[in-house]
Amino acid sequence: MESIKEAYITLPKGFKANGVAAGLKSDAANVNPDVDKSLVLDVALVESDVPAVVAGVYTSNLVKGHSLVRSIRKIGQGGKMRGMIVNSKNANAGVGKEGEEDADKVAKAVADELGCTSDEILTASTGVIGTRLPYEKIINKVPELVSGLSADAKNAHYAEYGMMTTDTLPKEVAASITLKDGKEVTIAGMAKGSGMIHPNLATMIGIFTTDADIDKDLLQDALKKAVAHTFNRVTVDGDTSVCDMVVVMANGMSGAVIEKDTEDLKLFEEALEELSYDIARMLASDGEGATKFIEIEVTGAADEYDAKLIVTAVARSPLCKTAFFGEDANIGRVLTAVGYSGAKFDPEKIDILVGGMLFFHDGVCVPFDEDEAAKILAEHDIHVEIRLQEGDAYDRMFTCDFSYDYVKINGSYRT
Amino acid sequence: MESIKEAYITLPKGFKANGVAAGLKSDAANVNPDVDKSLVLDVALVESDVPAVVAGVYTSNLVKGHSLVRSIRKIGQGGKMRGMIVNSKNANAGVGKEGEEDADKVAKAVADELGCTSDEILTASTGVIGTRLPYEKIINKVPELVSGLSADAKNAHYAEYGMMTTDTLPKEVAASITLKDGKEVTIAGMAKGSGMIHPNLATMIGIFTTDADIDKDLLQDALKKAVAHTFNRVTVDGDTSVCDMVVVMANGMSGAVIEKDTEDLKLFEEALEELSYDIARMLASDGEGATKFIEIEVTGAADEYDAKLIVTAVARSPLCKTAFFGEDANIGRVLTAVGYSGAKFDPEKIDILVGGMLFFHDGVCVPFDEDEAAKILAEHDIHVEIRLQEGDAYDRMFTCDFSYDYVKINGSYRT
Repeated sequence: MESIKEAYITLPKGFKANGVAAGLKSDAANVNPDVDKSLVLDVALVESDVPAVVAGVYTSNLVKGHSLVRSIRKIGQGGKMRGMIVNSKNANAGVGKEGEEDADKVAKAVADELGCTSDEILTASTGVIGTRLPYEKIINKVPELVSGLSADAKNAHYAEYGMMTTDTLPKEVAASITLKDGKEVTIAGMAKGSGMIHPNLATMIGIFTTDADIDKDLLQDALKKAVAHTFNRVTVDGDTSVCDMVVVMANGMSGAVIEKDTEDLKLFEEALEELSYDIARMLASDGEGATKFIEIEVTGAADEYDAKLIVTAVARSPLCKTAFFGEDANIGRVLTAVGYSGAKFDPEKIDILVGGMLFFHDGVCVPFDEDEAAKILAEHDIHVEIRLQEGDAYDRMFTCDFSYDYVKINGSYRT
Repeated sequence: MESIKEAYITLPKGFKANGVAAGLKSDAANVNPDVDKSLVLDVALVESDVPAVVAGVYTSNLVKGHSLVRSIRKIGQGGKMRGMIVNSKNANAGVGKEGEEDADKVAKAVADELGCTSDEILTASTGVIGTRLPYEKIINKVPELVSGLSADAKNAHYAEYGMMTTDTLPKEVAASITLKDGKEVTIAGMAKGSGMIHPNLATMIGIFTTDADIDKDLLQDALKKAVAHTFNRVTVDGDTSVCDMVVVMANGMSGAVIEKDTEDLKLFEEALEELSYDIARMLASDGEGATKFIEIEVTGAADEYDAKLIVTAVARSPLCKTAFFGEDANIGRVLTAVGYSGAKFDPEKIDILVGGMLFFHDGVCVPFDEDEAAKILAEHDIHVEIRLQEGDAYDRMFTCDFSYDYVKINGSYRT
């Protein structure tokens, strides 16, 4: 796999994108620096020139947003897709049957402009729950959105900015792989998501495009594997949103065919997972109010279930997260979180390291150099490692610290 | 049951208490307003003039503090107790075998002064994890602590202040009950706990005293029932501490005997539960950084398990808690938390009320008066009610909002 440094969603052949300002956002946040600062992008469209095979994974929340429910149904029907429209600021959730009708209206407007059926257009929304989607505002802007579609980096970035809510940075990745027959496949991805982030699922919106020619079932399987230990291992606040999904659109325009049980498929799966890994880290790093990126790893857990319990407990502990924000070497809080995680382990055989420095050995605090600890905690990236001696299971989770700004952002989210 | 308004731990006959400043706390927090402001109380002792029957409930955290482990062992051995010494600022946890030895030394110092065996002295510690208990500082103050023991309100309040950590208010309750034979029993309780609070258990330290003459098994049973829906329904941050316990000491000095299968026992159990309820509310209300007390109730859940999942998810959701802090009517976040709680329910049959005002009906947002909502959210006490139509199960949980001050307090806890 070759990573592509200057990444954007339209790098794979046959994809176009655009973002417009439909007036959903009144704030001046998330303005694309390339455009007029007064222009607040809030609607994004990713389009494939030819119908694309699509796979998706969705939030595990029992309550699901209407735009999402509609997309789950359309993808489930098995047809190919021409595009996906995403709006920010309004989740289109908890508003009743009008919600799905509103999403339908938006999809139809896009379909009419593109000259396809509305069944070929996916919808996604994130933002405030329980307020009717201002679909007329969006529909009014659809002609501008579609006429501006382009494979240019600029328009691709517009799309990313149109999806973003409290995100402070765009999250775009891309890579190419070369198949056995020498043909090249490109995969690109972008995501939004900053708060209300916790497994499962991905709890954000992620879109991948690829010009690979791949069967729907293989694509679905690859996506499921890719998100399992990446998107599904990000937590910002422990809140699993009602709107979120990751989709991948494969339009086959590279002419490179990926078959079942081949090295090519393995290569494709690995690339998709690696890009998912990169985006997952970006999501945690740009968590609401985050000043630090924190990776929690456990080794030697009794089994996978326990390993996940442990990384989840530590990653969502407000006490651990505020200590990291304060750069306070209060590592006893990590021990505490492991203790209440529900996992089985011997408290007298646990080691805890932060930034490679040992803080607890066999469950007992180790005298440590406060200056050295201060240096480690002053870093932006914090690596917490929990070593048990129960078995061979491993897991990891990405999170961020808990800051004043998290409280500020979420104390007045609607306004 | 007769509530006693001016409550303190030594109201039941034959109990004395005191608190001293042993120099564990360097900050000027939690100074008893009745005493010299320069005197920072950090050690408390509650004593019974005669050996008392004791029952206890303890944290469910797999990692347990050494002072706690010692107390669990002593109570488990079945003997009667003369007293309990509690220190703040240091959890005496995660320091290895020296931890229990340190607790033993402290208990022995108290026992020597009181003229009993160290087996008759319980120990409890909360504070920073992973730092050796400065037991010499405590032992040096034991003579002063014991010689000052008194049944006076003033000394009882000293004890409460000596236990407190980031608490901003003392938590003291008391009531009396009259048995069938006309004899009166008094029960008093006090607690500390402000952060690292989440079931199970009580996740703080609670001490009850009573002059009832009651069998150990009956007392244990009464305590277990009392905490189940009170102390075990408080969450501040979702972090279950390693140190925490609730104990009740019954010294029999009222001469009032409480027998098995009697109305008297029922009366006693009800009183203990009601006092536990009062303290649980005080704990949530004084949660770290709290500006609001929030009660989450669910009715109509499929079963008790689901009911608990729901109130727990909402009560620990950082997004709900920051919205309440910001007085933002973002009630969609409550719907979201119920959705990801893991409970089974029909999202189209859920009602959500806050302060008696309907925000969601049958899963759909109801148009509401923003001014009316603002008034409700401006209150100190917020009542959230979630109504399902799945069954008859009910549960409730007490919590508080998530403020800048929570982050501030916990970003620099050790210093």
